[in-house]
Amino acid sequence: MTAVAFDTFVHQLATVSGEAILPFFRTALSIEDKSRGRAFDPVTEADRAAEQAMRQLITTTFPDHGIIGEEFDNLNPDAPYVWALDPIDGTKSFIAGLPAWGTLIGLLKESAAVYGMMHQPFIGERFFGDGRSARYQGPAGERALFTRDCERLEDAVLYTTSPRLMDEADRAAFERVEARVRLSRYGGDCYAYCMVAAGLIDLVIETNLQDHDVIALVPIIEGAGGVVTNWEGGSAVAGGRVVAAGSRKAHAAALKALGA
Amino acid sequence: MTAVAFDTFVHQLATVSGEAILPFFRTALSIEDKSRGRAFDPVTEADRAAEQAMRQLITTTFPDHGIIGEEFDNLNPDAPYVWALDPIDGTKSFIAGLPAWGTLIGLLKESAAVYGMMHQPFIGERFFGDGRSARYQGPAGERALFTRDCERLEDAVLYTTSPRLMDEADRAAFERVEARVRLSRYGGDCYAYCMVAAGLIDLVIETNLQDHDVIALVPIIEGAGGVVTNWEGGSAVAGGRVVAAGSRKAHAAALKALGA
Repeated sequence: MTAVAFDTFVHQLATVSGEAILPFFRTALSIEDKSRGRAFDPVTEADRAAEQAMRQLITTTFPDHGIIGEEFDNLNPDAPYVWALDPIDGTKSFIAGLPAWGTLIGLLKESAAVYGMMHQPFIGERFFGDGRSARYQGPAGERALFTRDCERLEDAVLYTTSPRLMDEADRAAFERVEARVRLSRYGGDCYAYCMVAAGLIDLVIETNLQDHDVIALVPIIEGAGGVVTNWEGGSAVAGGRVVAAGSRKAHAAALKALGA
Repeated sequence: MTAVAFDTFVHQLATVSGEAILPFFRTALSIEDKSRGRAFDPVTEADRAAEQAMRQLITTTFPDHGIIGEEFDNLNPDAPYVWALDPIDGTKSFIAGLPAWGTLIGLLKESAAVYGMMHQPFIGERFFGDGRSARYQGPAGERALFTRDCERLEDAVLYTTSPRLMDEADRAAFERVEARVRLSRYGGDCYAYCMVAAGLIDLVIETNLQDHDVIALVPIIEGAGGVVTNWEGGSAVAGGRVVAAGSRKAHAAALKALGA
């Protein structure tokens, strides 16, 4: 299977998931609290419908591939190729009607993230990459994605979904970075990572990510020239504590400040 | 001048401002720090180009009308009709490439907000109202906007752009509300208000707003069945400390908790 063939297939997955999601955006939704009284973590009908649509297309087209997703049990997670699906990354924005959410579709080959897409079906834009290059399609046309150079934390624009999602020690480490950057903002979810790829944000620092939250984003950011690792500098594909940066220098400076 | 004629004209203003803004979205921008070392408050080329385009159309069409805006000096602010313009509400989202920003176009008649529109030209959606009704046009079609009933703070979804923008006393008051609601989220800017009008958010509580930040939003939210006032329950059109709510009960409960 070549990268080009996966490219076409991932666009098909994005299309079917978008069709499943859009009827539920900005309408009354039945929301469950998946985490039973702990942090508020809504699951929508849209999440399930989109993941089912993508799973069906994957199992029909690539019956030997594995699937890990947010809504249903893992399928063949030890297969050579494994798809990582997060139908709605940014569920809180979604249920509030805000546009900063997206569908994450990632592909692992032997545990390395080799292809990823973020699709926002309401806006009609797609960010995708294979680790060597990354591209954008949307209302503003189609173009290659490139991160921007940021030499120092003092020049960086930093995003995190919310420091309140971090435990006390991680929040203290995050705040050491936050105290030095030019601008720190909360929210964004998958959009913040794609804007690192697009050269508009320099750093995203988060904790407690699931694998399907991050696998799709790695080949996009790396393809655009950026760096994504865990806080120790290792592979980010398992999720957990993640640092995404547009430049090696900003990444190194963030890791150093987090570990200081 | 009838409400219908203003409706057509405001759509024209939205179109010309959108055309002025879009070439600058997600491109390298020259950003000034308007506040000279205080809070980070970027101004973009897009902001100025859009406000100039709207001012030109207003002064050509309605030479007797006043204009208050973000980027240039006020023009006839004591005229019977005064336009309130904020070309890019959510500048920090804009410069980071995130879609949660919009153009605010409001009309005051004898100091009362009688027409308002929020336009997001990248997504291609418009929220507009005249205090008696409110409507939406966008990728999801056209429809009337209605707030939702929320009886108690404990059921409410609350938004604020950032508690860090508040002074200490206001933040303490805000946190009394935040401690009681079902979900509190930061960010959103003008989108949060429009989602109150769309029945997806119950409360927005902010401080330090400019008049042009809020005038356009009042006729949209009131037209959809909601309530917008300052923290004392008076008119919100001067900006300052603002509470927007989808229902009278949620509004009253928020005012009470803020003042407790």
